[in-house]
Amino acid sequence: MAKPPKNAISPTRAENYPEWYQQVVKAADLAETSDVRGCMVIKPWGYAIWENIQRQLDAMFKATGHENAYFPLFIPMSFLEKEAEHVEGFAKECAVVTHHRLEPDGEGGLQPAPSAKLEEPLIVRPTSETIIGATFARWAQSYRDLPILINQWANVVRWELRTRMFLRTAEFLWQEGHTVHATKEEAIDETRQMLDVYAEFAEQYMAMPVIKGEKTEGERFPGAEATYSIEAMMQDRKALQAGTSHFLGQNFAKAQEIKFQNQEGQEVYAWTTSWGVSTRLVGGLIMTHSDDDGLVLPPKLAPAHVVILPMYKSDEDRTEVLSFCDQLKADLIAQRYDDEPVRVRIDDRDIRGGGKKWQWVKRGVPLLLTVGARDIAEGEVFVSRRDIGGKGQGTPREEFVANVSGTLAEIQQALFERAAKLRDEATVQIDSLAEFEKYFAEGSPGGLAHCHFVDGPEMEAKLKELKVTARCVPIDAAEEAGKCIFTGADSLRRGVFARAY
Amino acid sequence: MAKPPKNAISPTRAENYPEWYQQVVKAADLAETSDVRGCMVIKPWGYAIWENIQRQLDAMFKATGHENAYFPLFIPMSFLEKEAEHVEGFAKECAVVTHHRLEPDGEGGLQPAPSAKLEEPLIVRPTSETIIGATFARWAQSYRDLPILINQWANVVRWELRTRMFLRTAEFLWQEGHTVHATKEEAIDETRQMLDVYAEFAEQYMAMPVIKGEKTEGERFPGAEATYSIEAMMQDRKALQAGTSHFLGQNFAKAQEIKFQNQEGQEVYAWTTSWGVSTRLVGGLIMTHSDDDGLVLPPKLAPAHVVILPMYKSDEDRTEVLSFCDQLKADLIAQRYDDEPVRVRIDDRDIRGGGKKWQWVKRGVPLLLTVGARDIAEGEVFVSRRDIGGKGQGTPREEFVANVSGTLAEIQQALFERAAKLRDEATVQIDSLAEFEKYFAEGSPGGLAHCHFVDGPEMEAKLKELKVTARCVPIDAAEEAGKCIFTGADSLRRGVFARAY
Repeated sequence: MAKPPKNAISPTRAENYPEWYQQVVKAADLAETSDVRGCMVIKPWGYAIWENIQRQLDAMFKATGHENAYFPLFIPMSFLEKEAEHVEGFAKECAVVTHHRLEPDGEGGLQPAPSAKLEEPLIVRPTSETIIGATFARWAQSYRDLPILINQWANVVRWELRTRMFLRTAEFLWQEGHTVHATKEEAIDETRQMLDVYAEFAEQYMAMPVIKGEKTEGERFPGAEATYSIEAMMQDRKALQAGTSHFLGQNFAKAQEIKFQNQEGQEVYAWTTSWGVSTRLVGGLIMTHSDDDGLVLPPKLAPAHVVILPMYKSDEDRTEVLSFCDQLKADLIAQRYDDEPVRVRIDDRDIRGGGKKWQWVKRGVPLLLTVGARDIAEGEVFVSRRDIGGKGQGTPREEFVANVSGTLAEIQQALFERAAKLRDEATVQIDSLAEFEKYFAEGSPGGLAHCHFVDGPEMEAKLKELKVTARCVPIDAAEEAGKCIFTGADSLRRGVFARAY
Repeated sequence: MAKPPKNAISPTRAENYPEWYQQVVKAADLAETSDVRGCMVIKPWGYAIWENIQRQLDAMFKATGHENAYFPLFIPMSFLEKEAEHVEGFAKECAVVTHHRLEPDGEGGLQPAPSAKLEEPLIVRPTSETIIGATFARWAQSYRDLPILINQWANVVRWELRTRMFLRTAEFLWQEGHTVHATKEEAIDETRQMLDVYAEFAEQYMAMPVIKGEKTEGERFPGAEATYSIEAMMQDRKALQAGTSHFLGQNFAKAQEIKFQNQEGQEVYAWTTSWGVSTRLVGGLIMTHSDDDGLVLPPKLAPAHVVILPMYKSDEDRTEVLSFCDQLKADLIAQRYDDEPVRVRIDDRDIRGGGKKWQWVKRGVPLLLTVGARDIAEGEVFVSRRDIGGKGQGTPREEFVANVSGTLAEIQQALFERAAKLRDEATVQIDSLAEFEKYFAEGSPGGLAHCHFVDGPEMEAKLKELKVTARCVPIDAAEEAGKCIFTGADSLRRGVFARAY
């Protein structure tokens, strides 16, 4: 009987996708659970990916005129009460600070000091519309002060009962953009512009194809007039909401008195937006590209593009091989990819060759090189391309160096195309409820179903029953007369339905 | 009668230094108070300075082998109980999370839901030795896992009653390095290495001269065996502790079971360190260089090196002037300073020229240019150097562009030298208590007094009476026989004493 091919990750995606995900996170040294319920420790390799995400997004935010600032971690409880829908959305899952001191409890331990109870409890920010809005009310006095275009990189806390690393954790890292505009049109333009920025980032940097669309009423941000999102499809054919951009209308402006004097001298309410992406993107990255050997990283976000493993048996070999590797590293760093020097590491740790190589495979490094005395004699390096897998091949050293940037670009493109192909293969148009029910029946693979629909309780009930969600109405969907598959009512646009994270 | 010279900041430093500080923070748009007690809003200009601080320090940490990671915001209360001195130091001033949900209070408001009370309260991290140590206990298994060299950029909360923007706020931003080593010597080397990194950053980037030294027992980090600090002197001759590096010995390793198997196969406790700097550095930057016209920024940390103000009266002028300014900006950006393109902004807002110029003076931009039609005709730009002040002067355009990098370097150096001169002028050796009491008498300017001392209750009592603190024992202080000015006991080294922030 033929042995099955061995994989670094067990179980495989086919065997148990959710467990495969956890094992990839572990095997790639991305994160681990902490001693605090629902909070994770982001390990150096995982954090380096987040830093690359941050650096690129930050540059894109600045290029579109935004500036960073920082607002308090805490929100007075009364602030949440101001916007009715908002409090409904966030009061159920927040960390509440009630005391500002501990004292001995008389039994050798500590307790919150009763004498240090806060007059008004503070909420650890689940999102910052209310606390930032209070500041904007001071900043926006005249039309000359607008627009206000601010972004904040921060940690937020939403008390989740069921957590999964990167995808849903009690504390997570994110950026939240908050802007104030003089007109409705300008605020809508901003909302859409940032959705475009997110989509461009997802596709160009994460190599993750996304659908840009508007959320249905039930999926809207609490307090928003319209929520737009980018939706990606993971390898298990479930959708992942990867970023959102909200047109808040005048809801927060009215709740928080964000008013300004317009050019005509009248005092009027402003229009606001907010938009955010989080460490959830790392989860999306993992589930879009990784395979049964672990993480696969798109080069643009990889902490290392190339890892070089020197191979030697004797001290004499060692000197020769290391000196060759040092020069190789220097030559590679002199090459540029994506406007930056190629990122190279030499791993000379004293670990058995095979184990070390697998570690970097599992960590998803795009190009893994082994260099031994024989390779050097032949003027070669032995190259394994992570996206293709397999044993790798000997490549003339000069050729590898000269082409490294092109090879990385090729990998980036190949990953995007593979993901787009998978997504397109799992995309269908469905025009009847029976077909829809069959498509999302338990045990069937499902995917992204584009269907005519009319938002309402019939749809919500059926979706709940099938454990399917309305993802969005694609922005670029053409108008097309049709009938809602749930109610038969007239519809002019298809929405995207899927199981989702 | 001659009019006194007008200044942008009122009061001046001489009139009321603490109030001058608050007015500079305000006039330079650095930060403002928030709606949460003790927490500030860091505004874009202030945050951009912090970003520059972060970027440079981050590069220095990485160059010394450290990697970034992220650990939970919350610390279980029981973790604080593990290290006796540590809890003593931090339990008195921390934000305590006791509930994870709000619910309607029946009177139209909200309250923490009694059914959502946490079994164990969580502390918002005041510093992360305990939560990171718990993780390190898992990471450190064998000597092969060491050293562990981690840094975290994060927000922390210490419930302060008396706050002052940047210098002391309930929430602040910082970095905290945490490392684990196999030997005591290695841990001490790390502690000292990071002190050197901080000193280099302070002097080379902030242009702020510092004394590197060891803290006395009373000023040590709770739980540390030795605390080192960099101490700067502000223009009011008070000292500012600007960064600390702690050798934690095995205190935290023992409290948290950070053990590893050494090369001989024995399980032994590790040695740990921690080190941090915070947004307090921004306060130090302000108080080291700023003058009665507002902020003065060292070029290496300035968000903009050059601000160009186009001046015109007619639309025709406007086109010509703006086109000249755009080209000037492009030419300046093509120049490099401190390994990066020169940072240039054009401010073409529709604001009366004088007000706009003063805004940039108050914000501390190193080089402020005004460009009008006459300047263009003469091939000149009108340049004001912020560190020198005065009216400025016409300079041939090409000459300005060609020399801009050199001019910025000159400003950076001049600021350091000015601060060093002030510090040296306010540094004395004092050898008797009477002299010491006179030097620090109420109303006298004070400064940095280098004195022989023996740490103990007599000294502590006298210092408390005089409102003076022991800053540190300089690392490079030569051994020198002397007598403690407080007790007459033999002493071998002088310490630095000062009033302090």
